[in-house]
Amino acid sequence: MWSQEFSRFPTKTGRRSLSRSISQSSTDSYGSAASYTDSSDDETSPRDKTQLNSKGTSDFCVKNIKQAEFGRREIEIAEQDMSALISLRKRAQGEKPLAGAKIVGCTHITAQTAVLIETLVALGAQCRWTACNIYSTQNEVAAALSEIGVAVFAWKGESEDDFWWCIDKCVNMEGWQPNMILDDGGDLTHWVYKKYPNVFKKIRGIVEESVTGVHRLYQLSKAGKLCVPAMNVNDSVTKQKFDNLYCCRESILDGLKRTTDVMFGGKQVVVCGYGEVGKGCTAALKAMGSIVYVTEIDPICALQACMDGFRVVKLNEVIRQVDVIITCTGNKNVVTRDQLDRMKNGSIVCNMGHSNTEIDVASLRTPELTWERVRSQVDHVIWPDGKRVILLAEGRLLNLSCSTVPTFVLSITATTQALALIELYNAPEGRYKQDVYLLPKKMGESSTALITVGRTSI
Amino acid sequence: MWSQEFSRFPTKTGRRSLSRSISQSSTDSYGSAASYTDSSDDETSPRDKTQLNSKGTSDFCVKNIKQAEFGRREIEIAEQDMSALISLRKRAQGEKPLAGAKIVGCTHITAQTAVLIETLVALGAQCRWTACNIYSTQNEVAAALSEIGVAVFAWKGESEDDFWWCIDKCVNMEGWQPNMILDDGGDLTHWVYKKYPNVFKKIRGIVEESVTGVHRLYQLSKAGKLCVPAMNVNDSVTKQKFDNLYCCRESILDGLKRTTDVMFGGKQVVVCGYGEVGKGCTAALKAMGSIVYVTEIDPICALQACMDGFRVVKLNEVIRQVDVIITCTGNKNVVTRDQLDRMKNGSIVCNMGHSNTEIDVASLRTPELTWERVRSQVDHVIWPDGKRVILLAEGRLLNLSCSTVPTFVLSITATTQALALIELYNAPEGRYKQDVYLLPKKMGESSTALITVGRTSI
Amino acid sequence: MWSQEFSRFPTKTGRRSLSRSISQSSTDSYGSAASYTDSSDDETSPRDKTQLNSKGTSDFCVKNIKQAEFGRREIEIAEQDMSALISLRKRAQGEKPLAGAKIVGCTHITAQTAVLIETLVALGAQCRWTACNIYSTQNEVAAALSEIGVAVFAWKGESEDDFWWCIDKCVNMEGWQPNMILDDGGDLTHWVYKKYPNVFKKIRGIVEESVTGVHRLYQLSKAGKLCVPAMNVNDSVTKQKFDNLYCCRESILDGLKRTTDVMFGGKQVVVCGYGEVGKGCTAALKAMGSIVYVTEIDPICALQACMDGFRVVKLNEVIRQVDVIITCTGNKNVVTRDQLDRMKNGSIVCNMGHSNTEIDVASLRTPELTWERVRSQVDHVIWPDGKRVILLAEGRLLNLSCSTVPTFVLSITATTQALALIELYNAPEGRYKQDVYLLPKKMGESSTALITVGRTSI
Amino acid sequence: MWSQEFSRFPTKTGRRSLSRSISQSSTDSYGSAASYTDSSDDETSPRDKTQLNSKGTSDFCVKNIKQAEFGRREIEIAEQDMSALISLRKRAQGEKPLAGAKIVGCTHITAQTAVLIETLVALGAQCRWTACNIYSTQNEVAAALSEIGVAVFAWKGESEDDFWWCIDKCVNMEGWQPNMILDDGGDLTHWVYKKYPNVFKKIRGIVEESVTGVHRLYQLSKAGKLCVPAMNVNDSVTKQKFDNLYCCRESILDGLKRTTDVMFGGKQVVVCGYGEVGKGCTAALKAMGSIVYVTEIDPICALQACMDGFRVVKLNEVIRQVDVIITCTGNKNVVTRDQLDRMKNGSIVCNMGHSNTEIDVASLRTPELTWERVRSQVDHVIWPDGKRVILLAEGRLLNLSCSTVPTFVLSITATTQALALIELYNAPEGRYKQDVYLLPKKMGESSTALITVGRTSI
Repeated sequence: MWSQEFSRFPTKTGRRSLSRSISQSSTDSYGSAASYTDSSDDETSPRDKTQLNSKGTSDFCVKNIKQAEFGRREIEIAEQDMSALISLRKRAQGEKPLAGAKIVGCTHITAQTAVLIETLVALGAQCRWTACNIYSTQNEVAAALSEIGVAVFAWKGESEDDFWWCIDKCVNMEGWQPNMILDDGGDLTHWVYKKYPNVFKKIRGIVEESVTGVHRLYQLSKAGKLCVPAMNVNDSVTKQKFDNLYCCRESILDGLKRTTDVMFGGKQVVVCGYGEVGKGCTAALKAMGSIVYVTEIDPICALQACMDGFRVVKLNEVIRQVDVIITCTGNKNVVTRDQLDRMKNGSIVCNMGHSNTEIDVASLRTPELTWERVRSQVDHVIWPDGKRVILLAEGRLLNLSCSTVPTFVLSITATTQALALIELYNAPEGRYKQDVYLLPKKMGESSTALITVGRTSI
Repeated sequence: MWSQEFSRFPTKTGRRSLSRSISQSSTDSYGSAASYTDSSDDETSPRDKTQLNSKGTSDFCVKNIKQAEFGRREIEIAEQDMSALISLRKRAQGEKPLAGAKIVGCTHITAQTAVLIETLVALGAQCRWTACNIYSTQNEVAAALSEIGVAVFAWKGESEDDFWWCIDKCVNMEGWQPNMILDDGGDLTHWVYKKYPNVFKKIRGIVEESVTGVHRLYQLSKAGKLCVPAMNVNDSVTKQKFDNLYCCRESILDGLKRTTDVMFGGKQVVVCGYGEVGKGCTAALKAMGSIVYVTEIDPICALQACMDGFRVVKLNEVIRQVDVIITCTGNKNVVTRDQLDRMKNGSIVCNMGHSNTEIDVASLRTPELTWERVRSQVDHVIWPDGKRVILLAEGRLLNLSCSTVPTFVLSITATTQALALIELYNAPEGRYKQDVYLLPKKMGESSTALITVGRTSI
Repeated sequence: MWSQEFSRFPTKTGRRSLSRSISQSSTDSYGSAASYTDSSDDETSPRDKTQLNSKGTSDFCVKNIKQAEFGRREIEIAEQDMSALISLRKRAQGEKPLAGAKIVGCTHITAQTAVLIETLVALGAQCRWTACNIYSTQNEVAAALSEIGVAVFAWKGESEDDFWWCIDKCVNMEGWQPNMILDDGGDLTHWVYKKYPNVFKKIRGIVEESVTGVHRLYQLSKAGKLCVPAMNVNDSVTKQKFDNLYCCRESILDGLKRTTDVMFGGKQVVVCGYGEVGKGCTAALKAMGSIVYVTEIDPICALQACMDGFRVVKLNEVIRQVDVIITCTGNKNVVTRDQLDRMKNGSIVCNMGHSNTEIDVASLRTPELTWERVRSQVDHVIWPDGKRVILLAEGRLLNLSCSTVPTFVLSITATTQALALIELYNAPEGRYKQDVYLLPKKMGESSTALITVGRTSI
Repeated sequence: MWSQEFSRFPTKTGRRSLSRSISQSSTDSYGSAASYTDSSDDETSPRDKTQLNSKGTSDFCVKNIKQAEFGRREIEIAEQDMSALISLRKRAQGEKPLAGAKIVGCTHITAQTAVLIETLVALGAQCRWTACNIYSTQNEVAAALSEIGVAVFAWKGESEDDFWWCIDKCVNMEGWQPNMILDDGGDLTHWVYKKYPNVFKKIRGIVEESVTGVHRLYQLSKAGKLCVPAMNVNDSVTKQKFDNLYCCRESILDGLKRTTDVMFGGKQVVVCGYGEVGKGCTAALKAMGSIVYVTEIDPICALQACMDGFRVVKLNEVIRQVDVIITCTGNKNVVTRDQLDRMKNGSIVCNMGHSNTEIDVASLRTPELTWERVRSQVDHVIWPDGKRVILLAEGRLLNLSCSTVPTFVLSITATTQALALIELYNAPEGRYKQDVYLLPKKMGESSTALITVGRTSI
C-alpha cells in the first residue's frame, strides 16, 4: 500500500508540491513523532560524514547518531502498543528460531519497524537495513538502531542516487552474505537480481509486504525467473482487514479533523464505494452523527450499504447538498470536474482509495481556478465566483498523508512478517518451491492469536 | 399513560372496533401471558357467581378462582425481572414500614401489579384492589391474588356498571377503612370524593401514576378541594425516561415486527417528532439499518436530530418515498389525508405518541377508501387505484396496542409507587400539606438505586 | 436451513413435545398469518374429501378450498415486500422465459412461496406443488393457489404417509411430465429417483435450496448417479448474507421479545460464536443497550469481535453474571450441563445456530430438574434450590421457532430460485453437465440488482 | 469554560510547565491555524512598536500588522463553517440593529471571534477588543482585524502587566465611550468597575459567556452592586449541549489520537462520570470499537449508562485491566495515586472534566517516579519497576489542550452572544433590570434556528 501510493521518486509536478510538503507537512505522514526530526539543522549529506556509535562501530549511515537516545524513546513508546511482537520475542527468545539468519531489509524506517528489527535480532538474526522511501525515515530511529549495532543506511530526504547507494551498502558487505530478504516494494529484490544474482544461491526466501512488490514477484514467477520461495504478506487476511476496515474507520476521522477541524455532527457526507474501506469510513461518520450517503455500482455491495442503513444514491443526486465527498472505489475519475463545479461553497473533497486518480484533480489545474494552499495538505480551489472547494492531500490517500497509522495496525503486519521469516527460514528443504506463497492460514491465525493475546483478557 | 390512551369506556365507534379486538387481539396489548386467559368458556358474570378460595374466603370477585395456580406462575415469571421490588421487599420486610396501612388500589391488574401488591403486603399493608381499565385485567392473576387473601374485584371485559360496582366493593367494606389510596387515572379517588368523602379523614395520602389522574389532582388542588397530600409519580425522572426513551427504543421494533413482520434493514422511515419518544424510535431503527428522516418544528430538538445524524426534513419532502411513518409529536393531524394520499403502495403508518389524533385517521373513513382488517390491529386502507396503506392500531399508541411493555419498565414505576406509599404513610404529621408533590429527588434516586442494584454487577 | 433444523418427521420424543406445540404454538413458527389457520374445525382428512375450485377443477388436495379468499389476501400482503419477484414478473412477462416449463416443486407452502409460484406461472410455467414439511403449510395459501389452478397437494399436519402421498400425486400425473424440479430438502428428488427414474430423461435441471438437499446432490454427484444438472441456491452470496447477518440481526430481538418480553437495555448477554450469525446478534443487542460478551475460538473472528468492541471471554468467566446466553457456533455442547448449573436464576438460554445440539439440552432431562412449560416454546427448567433457567424452543433454532422470517429475506431466496430455474431451463444444451453448480456470480448480481431496484430510490 | 480551566495567569508551577508548552504546543490548543503564528521572529514588545495599517490608522496594538493578509485567510476559512453568524449578518444588515452600539469586548482572539466581531460591525456597531487570555491570541487574526479598523489590543504571550494595559487601552479612549460590554471571564467588567465606574451610566448591558464571569456577576447582583442588566450566555441550552455532548463526542477521539496515535478498536476504556461529557465520550469510543466501562455515583446517571449498554463498575474493579482512563465527573481525586499505582504498563490517563483535579496529578510528583515529556502534552510517568503511565495534558482538560474546538461549535456561542447583544441593546427601557438574565428561550431557539438553517435542508 505504502509504495503504491507514495511514489518514492516524485515526478516533476509531484516534486514541486512535495518539496513544499517536506518542510511543512511530511512529518504528519509518518507519525507525529517524526515532527521532532529536525532536518534543517545540518545540510551535510550523511554520506559525507563519519560517525561512530558509542561502541565505536561505523557500519551504518544515518543523519545523526546523536539522536539515538531520542529515537530509543520513540521505539519504547511504539513497543507499548505492539504486544504481539513483544510476546513473539518472549516466546521464541529461548529457541532463537532465527539463529544464523542474515536478513537484509528494505522498509519504511520508523519506530514500529525498529520494534520488528529488534525482535528479529532477539530471535537470533543479524540485520542490515535500508529505507524503501526517500522521505519516510525517522532519523532518530535510524540512529537508535545504529547505536545498538544494526547496520542502517537511511535518512529522511535521500536523493535517488542516495537511495540506491544505501541499498547497495546494505547488500554488498564484505564477509557477510544475506540468506533472507524482507522487502517492501521490491526494490531491494530488484537490486539483488540485477547486481548480485549469485546472492540468491544462499537466500532461503523473500518476504514481501506491498502490492507493488508482490506484483513484481508474480511477474518474475510467471517468467520463470523467481529463483527462491517468496511469501506474500500483503494478501493476508489480517493485513487486509486492518489496513482497510478497522484502520480506515479511525483514520478517516483523524485525517479530516487534523486537516480541517470540521465538525462531523450533522454534516452531509457521500462515500463513493462500499468495499472494506467504504464500510470503515461510513461506520465512523455515521457514529459521529454525519448523514451519510453511499454510491456503489456493485449490486451486492449496494445492497449491503442499503441494509446497513445508508441511502444508496448516484453522486449527481447529492452533489449539490453534501459537505464532504470521500472516494474509495478503486476506480478513476469517480469525481469529475463537472461534479466539482457543482459542489457547494466550503465543501471538502478527499480520497481514501488506493490510487490518487479517483478525484479528477488534474481537471482542476486550469487557469480560471485559483489554488490556495491554506495549510499543509489543504488546498482551497477557488472558482471565479468565489466558491471554494477544500481539497485534501491533492487527492492522494488521505490517511497516509494526513493521519497516522496506529502502531497497533503496523504491529499486525510486522508480526506477520516475522512469522513469515521464521517459517521460510526453518522450512525443511523442498517444502517451498520457487514460487509466491500466500501465508498458510494457520500462520495468519498464529499471528492473530498473538495479537489477541496481547489485547484481550482471554 | 395507560388510561389516557386506552380509554376505559370506548365511544360508540371505538366500541365497535374494540369489540372486534377483544376477541382477537386485546390479549396482545397486555402481555403475551394474557393469551391464556380464556374468556369465552363461561358467560356467567362474576357478579353472579359465588366463589371461595382454598382458605374458604369469599371477599373478592374474579372471573374464575380456579385459575389461581396458573396466575401464580405468571406472577413468579414477572418477579424474575422485578428485582428492585424484590430487594425492597427483602430490605423492608423486617421493619414492616407499612404495618397498619390499609391501601385501596385501582390499577391495571397484571402479573407485574401483583408483584407490587404482594410487596405491599410483605411490608405490612392490607390491600383491596380493583381494575382501572375494563379490558386489561389478567383473570388468572386476579385469581392468584384472591387465593392468597387480597380482596380483588376485577375481570376482563367488565361493563361500565361493573367497573363502578367493583370500585365500590373495594372501598365500601364494613369494619375496614382505607388510609392510603393508590390510583391510576383518578377514578377511585373520584369515587371516594363523591360517595365517601368522610373516608378522607383517615387517608394519609394518595399516590397517582397517570397523566390524567395527576391532572385531576392539580385541578382539585387549584380549586382548594384537595384534602390530603398526593404524590405525583407520573412526572418522576425514572418514569419519564423509561416510559419514553428506553421503552420506546425497544417497543417500536417489537410493535412493527409483531404486526407486519417488516424487515427494518434498508427501509426508509420518517419519524415525526424528536422528543424522548422520537429519540428512542430513531435510535432503534437506525441501529437496525433503516434510513431514518426526522421532522421537527422545535429548533433545539431539530438541531439535536441533526447532530445525531438524521436528515431533518419536512414531511412533504419524503412522503412519496418512505416505507414507514411514525408519529410522536404530541400534536394533532401531523399526518394529513393529503399526505396519506401521496404515500406509496404498501407503506406503513403508525403512532407512538400519546394521543390518537396524530394521524388523521378520521379522514380515511370516507366512502372511496376501503378498509380491510388483515390481522388484529392491522388495517389495509385501499385507495381506488389499488394502493394500500397499512395502518396500525387505527392510529392509537402502537406500543400499548401491539407490543408488550417489558416487566423491567413496569418494575421501575411499581418501585416508585411503593416508595411513595412508604414515604407518605410514614411522614411526620405536617411534612406534607394538602397539595400535589413531586417525588423528592432522593426518592427517585432510591428507586433507581434499588433498580441499579438488581441490574448491574456493582 | 429449514429442513435441516425442523425435521419433517419428529422422533418419538420430538413428537411428544411437538404435538404440544402444534396446538399451541406452531402458528408462531411460520408467520403470524398462520394464526388464522383453523385446524381444529374439521377433522376429516383432506385425502377423504372431494373439493372443487370455482372453475370446477379438482386437481389439488388442500384442507379447505373455501379459505382461498383469505389466502389471497395473505399473498397480496406478501407481494408488497417482494418487489424483486414482482419486477422480475414484469420484466420477463413479455418474453415468457419459462414457456413450456413444467415444474414440480416441494417447498414450504407459505404466502411468500405462493408469490414465487405465481411468478413462475406468469413467466409461462405450469406448476404442481407439494410441501416439504408436514407442519409448515399455510392452509389458506394452499387453497388460494388451488383456486387459481395450481395443483397443490399439502396441508398443515400431514402424517408421514400423507407426506409421500402428496409428493407422489404431484409427480405422478397422467399426461403430464415435469421437466424441472424445484426442491427444498431433497425429498422430491429422492422420490423421483426411487419411483420414476425415467422422468429424469426429460428433466432439464434441479434447483435445490437447502443444506441437506444440496448435500444429497453432492453425494449423488460423487457416486456418479446425478443424471441432470443441479443448481445449488443455498450457497449463493445473497442467501448466506441474508439468512445470517441481516436476518439474524432482526430476528434475535424478535425471537427473544415474543417469547420472554425481556428488556434488552442493560442486560448482560454472552454470544457464543462470532460468525455472520454472531455478528448479527451482537450488533442488534449492542444497539439496544445490552452489555455483550463474545466467546470465540477462531482467532481471526475473535480479533474481529475485539475490534468491534466486544469483550472476548471464556464462557466460564461470565457464566455466573449473564442474563442471556445465545449460541451460534455450529459446534456441539457449547453450553454444558455444568455451565447451566452455574447460571443465575431467571437467565435465558437459546440457540441461533444451525444444529439443536449447541446447548446440551439432553443433560437437563434428569429427574432432579423440573421442566415447566410456561408458554409455547418457553420452558422453565427448575433446579432443586428453586433456580429457574428459561430455555427457549428446547434449544432448537430460535428464529425459526419463535419469530417470523421477514418476507423481504424470503424474497431474495425466491428470486434467486426463479433466476436459477430460468437459467437452467434456457441454457443451451451442454452448457451444464450432470453436476452441481453454484449460481454464476452474475446471476447473484442480477438477483441483487432486482432487489436493490425494489429497495432504494436510485 | 475557557477561562476556568486555562487560567490566564499561571501560578508558579503552572508557569513552569506552561512556559514549556508555549514554545512547543500551545499552538495546538487554539486551532491548528495558530501553528503559523511565528512568535519567535521578533522579540520587541508590541507596546514598543509603532505600526500603521494600510489606511494609516494606528489605534491598535498587535504583534505584526503585516500578518493581516494571512489572518484574513484564516477568517475566511472560519466563515465557511459559521453559517449561522453569516445568515444573521445578512438578515440584520438592512436594519442595522446595532447602529450606535459601542462595544468593548474581551474574549479569546481567534478567527472565529473575528467572524463575530465583523458581524457586529456589519450590524452597525463600533468595536474595541482585547484578549481574555495571555496565550490564546492568534496574532495574524488580530492583525487582520486591526487592518480593517477594529481597535484590537492583544498578542500572544502577553505579560500580566500587558494584559491589564490592553484592557485599559480598550476602554479608556478619549472621545469614545462604550455602551455595551461583551466579556469572557469578567476581567473587563471588573476593570471598568474598578477604574471607570462612571462608564456604567451609559452601558445598556453586559453579555458574559464564561462560568467564572457569570459567577462574578451573580455575586455582584447578590451584593446589590450590579448596576446594569447582564445576560448569562453560559447557561444557554445550546451552549451546554454543544460544549458538552456533541463537542466532546468528537474531541475525545481527536485529543487521544493527536497525542498518542492510539488505536481505539479493542481498547478497554473506563469513563468516570456519565453526565453530558461522559455520554459524549462513551458514545464515540463505543462506536470506534472500544470496550467501555462507566463509573458513576449518581444512580439516575448510572441507570442511564446501564441502559445505554455500558457496564457500570467501581474503578477499582477494572483499574488493572483498562488501557485508558478518562475522567469527567466534576469531582476531585477521582483517580488516586493508589489507583495509578495499579494501572498497567502503557495505559493512558486523561481528563475531560472542567477542573484539573480529577486525576490526583500532584501525587505523581514524588521522587520515586520519573517524569518524561515524550511529546508536547504527553508525559510518561515511570514507576521504579519500569511501568509507564501516559498522562495527557498533565491532567488538564484534554479537549482544550490537545484538540481543536470545531468552528461550528464556536459559531453557536458566537451567534448567541450576538443575539444577546442585539436584545439588550434594543430592549425598551425597563424591560431588563439590574440583574443577571438567562437567555429567553425564544432567543435560544432563534439562535438554533439560524444554525439549523445553515445546516440542514429544511
